[in-house]
Amino acid sequence: MSVQASARAVTARSAIMRAAERLYATEGFAGVSIRQIGEAAGQRNKSAVQYHFTSRDELVKAILAEHAEAMEVHRLAMMSRLGEPAGMSPRDRIRCVVLPHIEHHVDLGVPSWYGRFLAQVVVEPALREYAVSVHLERPSLRRLYDATRDPGERDPARTARREAMTRVLIVHMCAELERDLAAGHATAASAATAWRRLGDDLVTAVCGLLGALRSDPR
Amino acid sequence: MSVQASARAVTARSAIMRAAERLYATEGFAGVSIRQIGEAAGQRNKSAVQYHFTSRDELVKAILAEHAEAMEVHRLAMMSRLGEPAGMSPRDRIRCVVLPHIEHHVDLGVPSWYGRFLAQVVVEPALREYAVSVHLERPSLRRLYDATRDPGERDPARTARREAMTRVLIVHMCAELERDLAAGHATAASAATAWRRLGDDLVTAVCGLLGALRSDPR
Repeated sequence: MSVQASARAVTARSAIMRAAERLYATEGFAGVSIRQIGEAAGQRNKSAVQYHFTSRDELVKAILAEHAEAMEVHRLAMMSRLGEPAGMSPRDRIRCVVLPHIEHHVDLGVPSWYGRFLAQVVVEPALREYAVSVHLERPSLRRLYDATRDPGERDPARTARREAMTRVLIVHMCAELERDLAAGHATAASAATAWRRLGDDLVTAVCGLLGALRSDPR
Repeated sequence: MSVQASARAVTARSAIMRAAERLYATEGFAGVSIRQIGEAAGQRNKSAVQYHFTSRDELVKAILAEHAEAMEVHRLAMMSRLGEPAGMSPRDRIRCVVLPHIEHHVDLGVPSWYGRFLAQVVVEPALREYAVSVHLERPSLRRLYDATRDPGERDPARTARREAMTRVLIVHMCAELERDLAAGHATAASAATAWRRLGDDLVTAVCGLLGALRSDPR
């Protein structure tokens, strides 16, 4: 491929990814065809999406991977400021889990689509495993969770449940705020303020939830 | 309609609802056509689903309403044992919010589909508002939340956020356990035990989360 053709391919891929994320966020997976995505991305060739991504699932995975990379930049910067996870306060570890999502949303601006897109991906049977592994099995996130784990915990199901609760709150509360901001009924003066307030609430909520589950003898 | 025809219609509606819930839970809204649902429900007439429900959204609403009614029976029984919400302990109020979901899942047995079905409905743009209002605007649930509300709370957005966090945890954690049970990798000896353990964890988690947010001065 020539340099020009290759540059055009990058531009086309990016336009398709943005159109897909927007349409899926607002219409749902069931409401959007691959052809509509190509049209919305300004592609004249009716097979453009298949040509660039082969299938809906590969297109979704490419979108997820791109956002995960951007969040990872925020997370690694936070972690390099705060030192090793084992030496962090529990609250700082939760900050490193939660706030990269928030800062990524601040970067995306308003309206964004990724929050609602991700909330649908994690409940879509064909995509869920991939989404959870891409977002959860990052080595940085694993190190944070492992440092949070109770050394006396004998039941791995309880550890998995705490991580699942944390993930569920982050993913679905980000989708809720994104929807409110897109609909124009955010209460905060600016979107960045609203996102960071959600970030603070999520850190507080997750710390409270983990503390309560840990002190529950069962 | 004759008595027999009317009885057949009830049976057909029920078969269609069960098939829809199962197929949507396992294949997602995008993976299942109305015609496939009719076939899976044993309907020979290709328009059976349209005939009985007019559209996908009306079918989904009928399924949701049926489950909401069944949960309401559990909630009203709990509330009549415990008295007025204002007189309950905070933990008992949260029990009345969470445990009807759990007892309904115990009633459904294994495998069930409703948990994964509901998790997809609440993120589907066309259905979400309806799902939240059917599940959240029940008078019984509203009374519980209103009694939980902090009288000194001046910011209605914070109250709405706490309710949203509670809902998100219940809906998506029930879907996770249902998926694990259906896949046969539940760790508990019996499904009922696993459901009630999730119920206890959710009550503890929600109480911890609400307490932490309430004592956060911001």
